[in-house]
Amino acid sequence: MKHNIPLEEALELLLEKTISPGESSVPLIHALGRIVSQDIVAQENSPFFDRSPLDGYALLASDTGSATSSQPVRLTVLEEIPAGYVAVSRVTSGTAIKVMTGAPIPQGADVVVKYEEVERKGGIVSIFKPLKSRSNVVYAGEDVKKGEVVAKQGILVTPALIGLLAGLGIASVTVYHRVKVAILSTGDELINIDETLRPGKIYDSNRHTLQARCLELGVEPVMLGNVADRQDQVAERICEGLKQADVVITTGGVSVGDYDVVQDAVEEAGAEIIFWKVDIKPGSPILAAMKEQKLIIGLSGNPVAALITFDLLVIPLLKKMMGRRKYLYSKIQGALLDGFIKSSEQRRFLRARMLVGNEKILVRLTGIQNNSALKSMMECNLFVDVPAGSGPLNPGDVVSAYVIGSIDNVDE
Amino acid sequence: MKHNIPLEEALELLLEKTISPGESSVPLIHALGRIVSQDIVAQENSPFFDRSPLDGYALLASDTGSATSSQPVRLTVLEEIPAGYVAVSRVTSGTAIKVMTGAPIPQGADVVVKYEEVERKGGIVSIFKPLKSRSNVVYAGEDVKKGEVVAKQGILVTPALIGLLAGLGIASVTVYHRVKVAILSTGDELINIDETLRPGKIYDSNRHTLQARCLELGVEPVMLGNVADRQDQVAERICEGLKQADVVITTGGVSVGDYDVVQDAVEEAGAEIIFWKVDIKPGSPILAAMKEQKLIIGLSGNPVAALITFDLLVIPLLKKMMGRRKYLYSKIQGALLDGFIKSSEQRRFLRARMLVGNEKILVRLTGIQNNSALKSMMECNLFVDVPAGSGPLNPGDVVSAYVIGSIDNVDE
Repeated sequence: MKHNIPLEEALELLLEKTISPGESSVPLIHALGRIVSQDIVAQENSPFFDRSPLDGYALLASDTGSATSSQPVRLTVLEEIPAGYVAVSRVTSGTAIKVMTGAPIPQGADVVVKYEEVERKGGIVSIFKPLKSRSNVVYAGEDVKKGEVVAKQGILVTPALIGLLAGLGIASVTVYHRVKVAILSTGDELINIDETLRPGKIYDSNRHTLQARCLELGVEPVMLGNVADRQDQVAERICEGLKQADVVITTGGVSVGDYDVVQDAVEEAGAEIIFWKVDIKPGSPILAAMKEQKLIIGLSGNPVAALITFDLLVIPLLKKMMGRRKYLYSKIQGALLDGFIKSSEQRRFLRARMLVGNEKILVRLTGIQNNSALKSMMECNLFVDVPAGSGPLNPGDVVSAYVIGSIDNVDE
Repeated sequence: MKHNIPLEEALELLLEKTISPGESSVPLIHALGRIVSQDIVAQENSPFFDRSPLDGYALLASDTGSATSSQPVRLTVLEEIPAGYVAVSRVTSGTAIKVMTGAPIPQGADVVVKYEEVERKGGIVSIFKPLKSRSNVVYAGEDVKKGEVVAKQGILVTPALIGLLAGLGIASVTVYHRVKVAILSTGDELINIDETLRPGKIYDSNRHTLQARCLELGVEPVMLGNVADRQDQVAERICEGLKQADVVITTGGVSVGDYDVVQDAVEEAGAEIIFWKVDIKPGSPILAAMKEQKLIIGLSGNPVAALITFDLLVIPLLKKMMGRRKYLYSKIQGALLDGFIKSSEQRRFLRARMLVGNEKILVRLTGIQNNSALKSMMECNLFVDVPAGSGPLNPGDVVSAYVIGSIDNVDE
């Protein structure tokens, strides 16, 4: 068992334990938010055929060499092709076919002239300037070529990818199985949110926060409720969790006190401890163990510490388990807008928010940074990484930070 | 009817038509991703009681004034309080109570000394230095004060908010009703993705892209399939959509061609056209109409144009309809990494991706910018806003861009 190790070492130890999940084929729309498990290869060109990007006339560019505004070239219109239909005739010298946006380019034609640039009288269309061959033609395969890999194994299925695949006629996608995470809260002090508060007790928030984080991530939470600080009971519930899920996450009971029973419970459950404590603040008390290829992770009972370590260590782990190619956080550099008065003997993570209004990235701390202040997580989309041995931070100091969670609501 | 108006005017015309959706109370975890419809006020302090942030001894600071490492103060330990329990005795001069992390501060005590800083022998604990009153005490209400608004009407329910509310014992939340969006594709050329390709036909991708975008946004898509370019049939399907949904979105048939029947169909359906065409590229052909307080929006059939106008105009509209306080996109400034060779007579939106690796924001174009290139949407999280009358763009040029969709996967 390793003790009080750096964050990166802890993450490495967890990541090396992951095994690839199974896969199955699902209908296209059900793949949204899932992870592609096999490279997807286009079986067709996109577009499938050369087509007109506008309403106009398809003809031979070579017919138009002598066209001027006073001496137009006159061509016989053979037919009209709406999108969805194919010309029955072939364009030859002296002829043209009217094509609508999206219609296939008729055989023989090598250019399309815009509707607005010609004059039509009866069955004759007049062209007033020479045209360049291949103008106004969208060629087959211009967006995607047959045989091209359109989605690599390990990428997230987004709406744009769904559109691209639909356009190629791909009606189902092979994706990784959903990862299941069992969530267990430990502590005599915990009561359920629908119970009445009693002296000394607190509502268990951790299970709900972690459940929501799992749902947001596309992981299936298995809710184990809460259990008292009794080694045998905790061990029993961990074993239950291992049966139902791929990973078991507990909160509470991982510190050094007399009632911190999780470490012993994990061993009683037959698991081997991988590490205990990570050298960061908040969130130092964290435990990782393994039993039969399944991980058990014991987080602090403190809501802020639990959520920070879940985000920093468990989310990359789950992303890797889900089969995501990119499972590590992006790191940014930005200038602090606020100061932070405390020195940081230990490596410290501050909750903050990214501001991107001008060319520079700015970092605003999200309120009080106490361990108890779950409120500071509410607007948080950055964890500022303050190295051990840092003094107080001043406005304007450039800091590094991890981009956490979804930030479609960054501020200007 | 307004014609060929600026994007901002179009957006304004849509936004002023929204009415507030209904609301209902849902269990806390079901509120994830929904929008808070009434300010949520804390009915309790958080924490509920003064508590110990660590394992130690609760005592009177005034007892320790004379304590030194050679002449410690000795106090009688009255009892031991784990988290979840309340002391039966009161701390008076000369006494202390052992408290575990999370336990309530016993009556009388005004300070907690760390376990590691004292010596315990039998029923006596020795203190080796003077303590400052109020040290190591987390006071009731430190995170949230009773009566405080913890979530404003109009905000998105995130995992952190769920945790905060759970900690306050709030088991259900009043959220806005889900908005329903009917999606209809028009065009003789369209076939379903499970059909076999026939000459001149293409797979309908738009309905899937828009369905996925709706799901991602938390809006309920109502799928109306596709319909041929026949005014009466399109009108009939639009009426169906109006019955089932709050907004109807169509794709295709909104340009000027002979087969562009959506405008006439919308009028046949009894709706009044608000505007037709927006002065941007791609996505200029777009139609908005209203019937009995419900909006109908006709997007281009071109997949890229449809998605860009959906993102630029429809998503802010839907966010406002959902009750979200922040419904407009954030705008960033950043330096281009690539050049863009074309001049922009019309205002143009380029698909791009934000890079945040250093203090500066960089903008990388996501591949070919043709109208047909849906592939360019795949990594896109920015729409670069190129003003009308711009020349070619060079690497290093500073551009403005809207932050689109979810970007938890920004690049370094």
